[in-house]
Amino acid sequence: MPRTFSDQQAQSNTHKSEMLTASEMRKAIVAGVSTPSAILEACLEAVDQHEEDVGAWAFLDRDGARRRAKELDGQAPEGLLHGIPFGIKDNIDTCNIPTDYGTPIYDHSLPPRDAACVAGLRLAGANPLGKTVCTEFAHFAPGKTRNPWNITHTPGGSSSGSAAAVASGMVPIALGSQTTGSVIRPAAFCGVVGYKPTFGDFNVSGVLANTPSFDTLGVMANCISDIVLVRQTLLDGSIPEMLEASLVGARVGIGRMPYWDQACVESQDLVENTATQLEQAGAVISDFDGGVIFDGLETAGALVSGYEFARTLTHERRTAYDRLSEILREGRMADGLRTDYKSYVMALRCIEKARIAFDDAMLCFDFIITPSAPGGAPDGLHETGSPRFNMAWTWLHAPVITLPMTTDQRGLPLGLQMTGRRHEDEYLLNFAEAVFRKFLV
Amino acid sequence: MPRTFSDQQAQSNTHKSEMLTASEMRKAIVAGVSTPSAILEACLEAVDQHEEDVGAWAFLDRDGARRRAKELDGQAPEGLLHGIPFGIKDNIDTCNIPTDYGTPIYDHSLPPRDAACVAGLRLAGANPLGKTVCTEFAHFAPGKTRNPWNITHTPGGSSSGSAAAVASGMVPIALGSQTTGSVIRPAAFCGVVGYKPTFGDFNVSGVLANTPSFDTLGVMANCISDIVLVRQTLLDGSIPEMLEASLVGARVGIGRMPYWDQACVESQDLVENTATQLEQAGAVISDFDGGVIFDGLETAGALVSGYEFARTLTHERRTAYDRLSEILREGRMADGLRTDYKSYVMALRCIEKARIAFDDAMLCFDFIITPSAPGGAPDGLHETGSPRFNMAWTWLHAPVITLPMTTDQRGLPLGLQMTGRRHEDEYLLNFAEAVFRKFLV
Repeated sequence: MPRTFSDQQAQSNTHKSEMLTASEMRKAIVAGVSTPSAILEACLEAVDQHEEDVGAWAFLDRDGARRRAKELDGQAPEGLLHGIPFGIKDNIDTCNIPTDYGTPIYDHSLPPRDAACVAGLRLAGANPLGKTVCTEFAHFAPGKTRNPWNITHTPGGSSSGSAAAVASGMVPIALGSQTTGSVIRPAAFCGVVGYKPTFGDFNVSGVLANTPSFDTLGVMANCISDIVLVRQTLLDGSIPEMLEASLVGARVGIGRMPYWDQACVESQDLVENTATQLEQAGAVISDFDGGVIFDGLETAGALVSGYEFARTLTHERRTAYDRLSEILREGRMADGLRTDYKSYVMALRCIEKARIAFDDAMLCFDFIITPSAPGGAPDGLHETGSPRFNMAWTWLHAPVITLPMTTDQRGLPLGLQMTGRRHEDEYLLNFAEAVFRKFLV
Repeated sequence: MPRTFSDQQAQSNTHKSEMLTASEMRKAIVAGVSTPSAILEACLEAVDQHEEDVGAWAFLDRDGARRRAKELDGQAPEGLLHGIPFGIKDNIDTCNIPTDYGTPIYDHSLPPRDAACVAGLRLAGANPLGKTVCTEFAHFAPGKTRNPWNITHTPGGSSSGSAAAVASGMVPIALGSQTTGSVIRPAAFCGVVGYKPTFGDFNVSGVLANTPSFDTLGVMANCISDIVLVRQTLLDGSIPEMLEASLVGARVGIGRMPYWDQACVESQDLVENTATQLEQAGAVISDFDGGVIFDGLETAGALVSGYEFARTLTHERRTAYDRLSEILREGRMADGLRTDYKSYVMALRCIEKARIAFDDAMLCFDFIITPSAPGGAPDGLHETGSPRFNMAWTWLHAPVITLPMTTDQRGLPLGLQMTGRRHEDEYLLNFAEAVFRKFLV
């Protein structure tokens, strides 16, 4: 099944065809040609092959997963994810798998309840394989994970382990979270599909807060139907099935907003070539410049993040200040503690207005395309790359998806980011499938 | 210090003068005329006197509080709440005091971290006396708590124990939370000051979610300056000191919105008499009918609550369904699971629009007065009373405070609810102090 990329300098995404997606696993189990245990063993094989290089797991629950797989073997495959192994970012509570939040402070804690998302996937028969590495409190200080495409490069963060585990075939799906750019960026760097829904769509009970005004649970997978399976599961089947979207007449915005110049030429080319090809397919392309939406948004978003993050971590500030990283203490936490309430409120209001302006602007667009990151994964493991191309969408509460479209000249993945209307996630996902399919052919 | 109300059929709130407020305790400690241990012992005396009748505590940490008081005795009183005992609603995580969320399911769990609010109060030197009773998962199924004014009556919910503990002088301040009417209602029924800030102002990391779109942390106390002390603490001193507000020219709305007819005559009289007296003091009184704000709001709010609550409790649905109360399972949870995503989103949008309309309407008002509940605490312990007069403000994210203004003919407290502009909590609290002081003279 999965292959190593690092030792093969993979130049394309043809390796995807060798991994089973969750949807394929599901078909195989339902058809009786595979079992939860057999599926799990294939995943564990990938773990054996790649984990030493990649370091995707904060805690691998090999025995627990095998026990659950055996139980599931004997049951009728009723749930949407019956027998599908999955990874859980380690800022998400699990009551029988240790939870560490990307810091040594908690020493394998066992919170009393599973997060709602974990419980939801379990209820649908999914099989948690363990906790994936996240940066310290989902902020910037990196964990041990390395990029499966080239282990001298960062996998991105903060959902580093989830992206790397899916990219190397250890699990077909993994949960992540995004407060700035923590799902889209690592997914793009690791060459997988990453999805951050509209803010609030996925219940965050049991997900460690970072900035409550922005924190959004997300998913990584190798195809869009797997994303939809997870979305169906977490929304208790209250959404419609996927539809085949037509690109003919689709109104596509090229997001050449602030920061465009900070994208490398290859990232810019990816967006522009995609636009050209979408136009050839019948789509109507125009610039999305955002108008007033982005005025002051970067300052406001950073200020809100700092203010809330510093207060979220009051327990750690009180009891374990010395065990926090310097970048956390001296960076966002210090900034947040320096910010007064009035400035915070003005920033919140600026963002609320930007959201309304965004909703209005999106009446003229079906989706927007931008680079998922300034470029492919930066060299080195000391930092996780820039969230600059992700943060505005997170703060605007918009749904976004990154598609692994190509690789750069170094052989590292480049993602295309698609942004849709708030709460029109199904609409966005249908278009994403149309775009992805077009470029995979 | 504190007195029993139940056996004395207290007809007025003159007993308040016998309890020290947190602000008074603070003064005494700072002046060196009392110590954290002496203050704690006075609180424990009230516990000994009332707890058997009132049942405010889910877990009373007598020994822990004594140990901490002794430590604090030896330290300079630097924090804003140095040596002040406080109660913590049991849907708020504490890592060294058992946390049960109002259900027998968790069997005295110890979550890995203190909630941000608990850590914040501790950081300021406050001394947690224990966990106060909350209804099951902060929904409707009552705990053991009884109303200190008359133990055959409900204390209200879901922050039942916090209201009762403050009312009976066991602690000067207690944390609560409100998703519908869970701070204001019990505070009003128990005759204390209850405050629910603007949504998001108090960080809810570590507070068990109910309906994330509405969940708001609140505070109970016996005076407004104590509320301000807690607000100062939780916002890290980033707000200004209290100012003396003038009622001359203050624009006061009488909230005779939907439900007015459901208030008992005494509650209506309280609001109207207050208005008359405010007018005599120079305020400008007019009706606040709310216009379009309330169109569809009740349906929308209930729908969002059900949808989110059912998903928040996925872990319990999966692992302990039979141990949930019938009212929870067959009521809000079942409603929520029947609701589809599209209806949920339409309800969210309706509420978002109502919030904008509310912000606009409030440009013409400094605050609105309404009853805090339809009447005094209902007879019996089987239900916690109606949140009808609270829920719209919660859903609108507006700051509200209830003031214990008088008692009804049964000798039970009646509250006046004051509602302010979003994020203008200081402004509201200053006016509340002016109103309260006027009526206490």
